[in-house]
Amino acid sequence: MPCITSVEVVDVRFPTSLTSDGSDAMNKDGDHSAAYVVLHTDAPGLAGHGFTFTIGRGTDLCVAAAAQRAEPLVGRDVDELCADLGGIYRELQSDSQLRWLGPDKGVIHLALAAVMNAVWDLAARRAGVPLWRLLSDMSPEQLVDAADLRYLSDVLTPAQAVQLLARQETGRKQRIAELEASGYPCYTTSAGWLGYSDAKLRRLCEEAVAAGYKHVKLKVGSVLADDIRRCGIAREVLGPDGNLMIDANQVWDVPQAIEWVKALAEFNPLWIEEPTSPDDILGHAAIRRAVAPIGVASGEHGMNRVLFKQMFQAGALDYCQLDAARLGSVNEVLAVYLLAACFDVPVCPHAGGVGLCELVQHLSIFDYVAVSGSLDRRVTEYVDHLHEHFVEPCEIRNGAYVLPVAPGYSAEMHTDSLQTYRFPDGTYWAQYADRPALP
Amino acid sequence: MPCITSVEVVDVRFPTSLTSDGSDAMNKDGDHSAAYVVLHTDAPGLAGHGFTFTIGRGTDLCVAAAAQRAEPLVGRDVDELCADLGGIYRELQSDSQLRWLGPDKGVIHLALAAVMNAVWDLAARRAGVPLWRLLSDMSPEQLVDAADLRYLSDVLTPAQAVQLLARQETGRKQRIAELEASGYPCYTTSAGWLGYSDAKLRRLCEEAVAAGYKHVKLKVGSVLADDIRRCGIAREVLGPDGNLMIDANQVWDVPQAIEWVKALAEFNPLWIEEPTSPDDILGHAAIRRAVAPIGVASGEHGMNRVLFKQMFQAGALDYCQLDAARLGSVNEVLAVYLLAACFDVPVCPHAGGVGLCELVQHLSIFDYVAVSGSLDRRVTEYVDHLHEHFVEPCEIRNGAYVLPVAPGYSAEMHTDSLQTYRFPDGTYWAQYADRPALP
Repeated sequence: MPCITSVEVVDVRFPTSLTSDGSDAMNKDGDHSAAYVVLHTDAPGLAGHGFTFTIGRGTDLCVAAAAQRAEPLVGRDVDELCADLGGIYRELQSDSQLRWLGPDKGVIHLALAAVMNAVWDLAARRAGVPLWRLLSDMSPEQLVDAADLRYLSDVLTPAQAVQLLARQETGRKQRIAELEASGYPCYTTSAGWLGYSDAKLRRLCEEAVAAGYKHVKLKVGSVLADDIRRCGIAREVLGPDGNLMIDANQVWDVPQAIEWVKALAEFNPLWIEEPTSPDDILGHAAIRRAVAPIGVASGEHGMNRVLFKQMFQAGALDYCQLDAARLGSVNEVLAVYLLAACFDVPVCPHAGGVGLCELVQHLSIFDYVAVSGSLDRRVTEYVDHLHEHFVEPCEIRNGAYVLPVAPGYSAEMHTDSLQTYRFPDGTYWAQYADRPALP
Repeated sequence: MPCITSVEVVDVRFPTSLTSDGSDAMNKDGDHSAAYVVLHTDAPGLAGHGFTFTIGRGTDLCVAAAAQRAEPLVGRDVDELCADLGGIYRELQSDSQLRWLGPDKGVIHLALAAVMNAVWDLAARRAGVPLWRLLSDMSPEQLVDAADLRYLSDVLTPAQAVQLLARQETGRKQRIAELEASGYPCYTTSAGWLGYSDAKLRRLCEEAVAAGYKHVKLKVGSVLADDIRRCGIAREVLGPDGNLMIDANQVWDVPQAIEWVKALAEFNPLWIEEPTSPDDILGHAAIRRAVAPIGVASGEHGMNRVLFKQMFQAGALDYCQLDAARLGSVNEVLAVYLLAACFDVPVCPHAGGVGLCELVQHLSIFDYVAVSGSLDRRVTEYVDHLHEHFVEPCEIRNGAYVLPVAPGYSAEMHTDSLQTYRFPDGTYWAQYADRPALP
């Protein structure tokens, strides 16, 4: 039986701040980065890959935390792990000394995500199927056992969760066939980073429409006059029927959010994303009441399932944008999908950064196949950056994710990429060895 | 003019798990620890000391994060820093790459607390006064400028905060005189750790009553029959008029919390503390409605001001137990005190661990002098452990904190203690060098 022989954690940083890729009103100079985990085994060719997404400084903290989180995995039997993916999650999560530093949030939780994402990748590879299929082949009882439902029973008990999944059990095969034909619909954020010029914005919007996208997202929240001009350009290119989304990346207080969004209402945005602190459940609910029919979207900084439970209880969200590398891996993602289905809120996962598109395609497919059974109001983010570093990059066709076929969670990076962008000693960063901060 | 010459951050861990000091239903084997920051200056005898409290593994993560957080302080003029304590907080907090790992929560926020606690200690030492007096001498406008009010303006604008502080400005001197005579009332948790035997529990309760305490707190939530027996012992010793508090340390889901607390209602507890996830604002509100007139207390894991804002908005708390080393230092603590005053919720700060009592005495005194102006329903935690490691330990007389007189925030640890308990190379831990985990 194969076993895990060692854990490797790599600090990998891409110098995206040089080109303003990923720039927004809160994050002006992110270097898209990852704490990247490899679970090595003694079976030839078998390893698990996972990561959490970061934006530069502090990636080292996630790397150190992931190494601690993963310690109990070394020496474990791979097949035993794969047979109890809920059990190993609960074991790693419940380290009470590390728990104190959260609980279930911040660096230790990002690290748990990185490690358990690698365990899920390993499980799917061991089964020889892509992750979405591994999940789609699990029974309602197996899925509920893997899901982290702690602190949720006032809204959703395990028995209710089984019932909810059982509703969609019969149609799974048919829905897989549908997606194999059409892909899973996505939208693009690549056009609208705040640091781009008007001319570049217009060109990228035109390219998006030509490529089959029906949704385009812009960053807003820095200067209102700029936002009005930029939204005007995007709306002109999209035409009246295209979907324009706007994203403020948490820069406003609640009253300011309401005022600013109303000033952009003439451009008929589908949603305002992250209008305020990601922790402000009641604030999101107040904004949603004030700006309707413009929708409210949030979740990329949604720290854990308890936050999402309350977002749904409070009627704070029109769109749930959970993050595959911020929540505690598939185990906690499952819980949020179940909660969202319970409250009939569509999940449109956050993606972009580095590798998030590779992960969320699996989750969206699984949601349609086995949880919500619906594509209504659902569209998954896609950002056209950094895919070249992945061994099995996601593939987009006609504005939709093509279903991955390779075994695993699509999380493996090329060895060359790791060697080049490992911080601070990869060949790219070694050029700046005297001055680790970018020029 | 003195300037900051270097930053030292120490991983210090005390082996409290050996004696079950601090044990509860969630944290069975904590080693009370700190990421301890020293800001060295070039002025003879002048340094700033601060820390965040941790319970063992992962302290190293906070140490590494604090070192990063503090980098911009090196070379700064001490008097300029002290003249703009709001500005330096906002500068350190707004590092957007580190912010991604929170925001305002988890390891990076604990680290901000440690660093900024040291800055406040430095400011009070430079002024030659204890921290409570430094704060009590600041004008409403100065206090509001120092407070972190971001994301709070739907409830409390800076102008409203100034008004709120102005209400109590005239009586400050008289209230200081009152506290100098009587001290600030406290309660003890030292009696009720979960790992203690019934005989030890009874003896410690008796000693607490004999020492003048009117409140005793027990840990609950592991086995209901044990809780019933232990609450019976404590109530018997306290008599019908003493105040018994119970603390579940987050072990229950919401429905279970309601059921368990109702089963202990016969012992007439004053409050149930941390009945469920510290993030569950709406859950605390539901529990509070269900178990009244038993109060609900929470806050030691309250991650930031946005959480507390919502706790108050939702009517979730009878007692706010903010933590001086989990919130982003005095800057964010000020915001929570202002919010609490706005909603008329008494603040009874969390203490214990290592050094928290030393810190919170300053905050409670300042609250009475300048914010709430009330002692009604207010009592500050006191735990009789680990004070011997502090240069100016807090002092208790007749169940009350005696007002500190030494300059600073009482945060400085003895050099001997650091040398002994520094992890992993202090003289205590070096004994276990082959096996860093405790026997």
